[in-house]
Amino acid sequence: MQKGKIAAQVGHACVMAATHPMLRPGPVSEAQDMETPAELVGNWLHQGQMKIVLKVQSLAQLREVLDQAHAAGLPTYEVHDAGHTQVEPGSVTVGAIGPAPVEWLDPITGPLKLM
Amino acid sequence: MQKGKIAAQVGHACVMAATHPMLRPGPVSEAQDMETPAELVGNWLHQGQMKIVLKVQSLAQLREVLDQAHAAGLPTYEVHDAGHTQVEPGSVTVGAIGPAPVEWLDPITGPLKLM
Repeated sequence: MQKGKIAAQVGHACVMAATHPMLRPGPVSEAQDMETPAELVGNWLHQGQMKIVLKVQSLAQLREVLDQAHAAGLPTYEVHDAGHTQVEPGSVTVGAIGPAPVEWLDPITGPLKLM
Repeated sequence: MQKGKIAAQVGHACVMAATHPMLRPGPVSEAQDMETPAELVGNWLHQGQMKIVLKVQSLAQLREVLDQAHAAGLPTYEVHDAGHTQVEPGSVTVGAIGPAPVEWLDPITGPLKLM
């Protein structure tokens, strides 16, 4: 994908990460004393909305990371491209994790490199 | 800026474009029979959330395009980077226009090239 296409896909992931968790009631994880998804999004919106774009080596690795995040009770979202332009229809282009505090994310995304 | 940094800045612009117009009451432009900003965002969220990433040659050109959009009554948003990493603090990195129907955007953004 070209730079602008990557940026648009990441943009889609960001909008979904900022809106999708609001649809999930209750705490992110019952195993921990976590904020509700709506609280997480609210805090994130008002605290600089930090976004970090990381790269994976394969779809398998992306799925593995998203599975880990999901198992840890974090909001995840997978972007499937409509495939009108540079990729095949339905291709997974980006995965989003969060919004969530950095200490919940680091154990999962820490090993990945910045894009 | 590197690819991932560009993507994160565009992500910020997308989230703000999807949330910021909701704070503006009333129609986008009194001059036209337009949807309210909330309706524009709602329609966009439910109709594929199309995003197109375009490039400008200079900050002056970015401001010119945003001014045109603002004058036409469209929602605009300017991303100022905190400057922790690759750019000077306060640098304008991305401008967002919309969400809005393509026929309102095309006269303004049509001359710009895809990133």
